[in-house]
Amino acid sequence: MKREIGIVGAGVGGLHLALYLQKHGVDATIITDREPHEYRHSRLLNTVAHHHVTIAREDYLGIDHWSKPELFYAYHDHYFNFPQPLHFRGDFTKPSRAVDYRIYLPVLMEEFMKRGGRIEYRRVDEVDIPVLAARFELLVVSTGKGGFGQIFPYRPELTPFSQPQRRLCVGLYNGVRQTNPMSVTLSVSPGHGEMIVIPTVTFDGIATALLMENVPGGDLEELATLDYAQDRKHFLRTLLAKLERHHPTTFDRIDPAQFDLAQEQDLLQGGVVPTVRNTTAEFADGKCAIALGDVHSVVDPMMGQGANMASYAAFVLGEEIVKGDALDVRFCEKVDLRRQDRVLAASRWTNMMLAPPSPALGMLLGTMGQNKLLADEFTENFNYPEVQWDRISTPQRIQAWIDRTSAPHEQRIAAA
Amino acid sequence: MKREIGIVGAGVGGLHLALYLQKHGVDATIITDREPHEYRHSRLLNTVAHHHVTIAREDYLGIDHWSKPELFYAYHDHYFNFPQPLHFRGDFTKPSRAVDYRIYLPVLMEEFMKRGGRIEYRRVDEVDIPVLAARFELLVVSTGKGGFGQIFPYRPELTPFSQPQRRLCVGLYNGVRQTNPMSVTLSVSPGHGEMIVIPTVTFDGIATALLMENVPGGDLEELATLDYAQDRKHFLRTLLAKLERHHPTTFDRIDPAQFDLAQEQDLLQGGVVPTVRNTTAEFADGKCAIALGDVHSVVDPMMGQGANMASYAAFVLGEEIVKGDALDVRFCEKVDLRRQDRVLAASRWTNMMLAPPSPALGMLLGTMGQNKLLADEFTENFNYPEVQWDRISTPQRIQAWIDRTSAPHEQRIAAA
Repeated sequence: MKREIGIVGAGVGGLHLALYLQKHGVDATIITDREPHEYRHSRLLNTVAHHHVTIAREDYLGIDHWSKPELFYAYHDHYFNFPQPLHFRGDFTKPSRAVDYRIYLPVLMEEFMKRGGRIEYRRVDEVDIPVLAARFELLVVSTGKGGFGQIFPYRPELTPFSQPQRRLCVGLYNGVRQTNPMSVTLSVSPGHGEMIVIPTVTFDGIATALLMENVPGGDLEELATLDYAQDRKHFLRTLLAKLERHHPTTFDRIDPAQFDLAQEQDLLQGGVVPTVRNTTAEFADGKCAIALGDVHSVVDPMMGQGANMASYAAFVLGEEIVKGDALDVRFCEKVDLRRQDRVLAASRWTNMMLAPPSPALGMLLGTMGQNKLLADEFTENFNYPEVQWDRISTPQRIQAWIDRTSAPHEQRIAAA
Repeated sequence: MKREIGIVGAGVGGLHLALYLQKHGVDATIITDREPHEYRHSRLLNTVAHHHVTIAREDYLGIDHWSKPELFYAYHDHYFNFPQPLHFRGDFTKPSRAVDYRIYLPVLMEEFMKRGGRIEYRRVDEVDIPVLAARFELLVVSTGKGGFGQIFPYRPELTPFSQPQRRLCVGLYNGVRQTNPMSVTLSVSPGHGEMIVIPTVTFDGIATALLMENVPGGDLEELATLDYAQDRKHFLRTLLAKLERHHPTTFDRIDPAQFDLAQEQDLLQGGVVPTVRNTTAEFADGKCAIALGDVHSVVDPMMGQGANMASYAAFVLGEEIVKGDALDVRFCEKVDLRRQDRVLAASRWTNMMLAPPSPALGMLLGTMGQNKLLADEFTENFNYPEVQWDRISTPQRIQAWIDRTSAPHEQRIAAA
C-alpha cells in the first residue's frame, strides 16, 4: 500500500523523518511557513551540536555536506570556577559537529526537494490539525512553533518546572580561539550559570557559539536582556567582564580586538520551559496526529539533547512507518514505547543538571576530575541519554558508577 | 556484587524467576505458604497450557520432566455452534503442553531446592511487604493470593470490567477421547459461552480439562454453581446434556459410561475479574517491590495467557536483575518498558474476546474457516499476544490481515 505522510514543521526531526521516508519509498509532504531562502538573514535559531549517533543518521540519509574532519570536535572540556578550580576533559568515541541551522535546515530542505520531495509553504495552527490529519494517512507534528496544548496536553507529572530555569544569552562570535583539535567547553560558574562553548560551522567558516545559561538572580542574568542593537560596545564590554570573572578559561581564549557577534543577527536571548506532552491525538476514522521533537519534549539546551532526540525519534518513527500495518493509535503507542526511554531520559537528565547539584552529583563531578574513564563515559553518554540516566538517576547509581570506573582494570573487565 | 532477591509466591512466575536467577548465580529466596507435599490432594488450581515460547524457557531452565512427544498437542480446533456450524483448524509452528499445576509447581519447587535454593514457608499479607522489601535487595511479589491493592493500586484505565465476564466451571475429566495427534478445542456456543478442551498431564496420565466459560444469563451459567459433591450423577447428567446442546463436537468424543472427574477434587467453579495494577512500590532507602504475574495483570483464562505471561515477565525481570546496576525505581521502570507491551496485549486481546464480537471480529472468524494461513497465524499468536493485538485491535487492522493472508502467494512474499 502506498502511504502518504504529512509532516508539519521543517526542523531536524521533520526533515530527518522526511528524508528517511523518501529513502524507503514512502511519500512525505512537509508543511512549513519558511522557504529555504528565508533562513539566510534570519535571527540565530539556536546552537545545536550533533553527536555521533545523529551524524551516523545523517550519513545514512546521505547528508554528507560537512564531512571534513576539521569541522568536528573531539571532546568536552569541563571547567568549574571554584576557588580551587576543577578542570578535566572527557573524550567521545567519535567526534561531534555543530552546523548553524540557518545553513543546515535549508540544505536538507533542498535535498529533500531535489530527490522529489514536496514542501508546502503555509502557516499551520492547532485548529488546522484535524483537517490535515484527515488528508494524510498519518500526520506528524514536529514544529516548535505555535501552541498545541489542546491536541497534545502537557504531562505535568513529567514536567517539574513551570518557568525557565536559565536566562539564556546565546550568540555566535568571532574572536574566540579554537583548541586543537576542536572541543566544546562546559564552563560552570557555581550559583551564576553555565556556558557551553561550541565551535560551529557558520556562513563564514568556524565561529564560536557561546551558549550562556544564566541562573535567575545570579550575576550573569542581565546578559539575557542586555541590548546589543542599542549599544554594541556596552554589550561586548559587559560580556567580556562577565566572562573574565565567571568563565576565565574561555575568556583567556578571546582576542578582545576581534570579539564580536559574527553577524548582528547572531544573538538569541530568552528562556525555555522544559515540557513533556502527550504524543497522540486521534481524529475521525481513527486518523492520528503524532508529536515529534519539541512538541513531544522540550528541553533546556544545556545538555545539547533537543535536536539529537528529535533526530533519534524521527528514525524510530520512520522505521515503524515503513514496517507498520495501520498508522493508528496502536501504531503511535508502539512508537512511544520504543522512543520514550531515551527521549524522556534526555529530559530528566537535563532537568537534574538544571537543579542545584545534589551531594552525589557534586561527588561525581569531583571524581571525574581524577578519573578519565568516568569523564569519558559521561561524555560519550551525550549520545545515549538513557544510559546517562541509568548512571546518575540516584545517589546509589552514581556511587556504583564511580566504584566501577575506579576499580583496577582487571576488576572492571570482570564486571563488564 | 552478590544480590539477594526475595520472591513472594511459588506460582509459575515466581518459580521461573527463581530458577532463572539460580542459573545465573543470583541468590533468590521464595516465600510461600504451601509446601510441595500439600499440592497432591488439593483442589484443582487452574487449567494451564504452556505455549512453545514458555516451553523454550523451561528447556532453558532444564525443567524437562514432560518432554515425551505424546504429552504435547499440535493445533487448535475451532468450532462455532451456529445453525450452519463453523469448523476450522489452526496449527502451531511448535506444539504446546498442559501439565496439572499440582504436579508442575511442586516439581519446580523441589528442583529449585535440589539446586540449592531456599524456600521459606509462611503466609505473607500486604502489611508484611515493607518489612520483606527491607530484607532483600529487591522484593518480587508474584502471588495471586491476598490483597495488594494498597501497594499496587488498580489501573482502572486498563481495566474495562469490574465483574467477571464469564462464570467458570473447570474440571479435569476422564472419558473424553483425544484426537490424534492431540489438540485443544475452542468450542463456542454463541450467547452462552466458550469451552476450551485441553489434554492435560495429570497424576494418572492424560485427562481432559473442560474449561467452560459460561456467559452470565446464558443457558450454561448454572454449571458454575452446580454441586458435584452433593449430587454427582445430577451434575454429570446436566453437564452432558449441556455439552450435547452447546458443544456437540466435544460431546461426540465423550463416552458417557467413563465420563467423570478424574478425582473428586478436580473441579473449580467461580470467575475472574480482569485487572491490571501498578507494578512498582518504593519503600525506605529506595528499596522496591515489583509485581509479577497475576499481581500485575489478571486475565480471564479463555485465551490461556496468564501463566505464559507470568513466565515471560519472569524472564524479562530475571534478565534485567542479572544485568542491572541498582534494583530501584529506575530498574522497575525499565522492566516495565520491556514487558508491558506483551503483558498488556494479552489482557487487551482476552478482554476483546470476552466482549460481544464486533462485525470485524465475526468476519475474521468466518474468514479463518476458509483461510488456513490466517487460522495458523491466529493460533501461533497465542505465543505472541502483542502480535495478535497488532492484528486485531481495530477493524482496519483485521481487514488488512485478512487481505494480506488472502493474497496470492507471490504477493504475500512481496508484502512480507
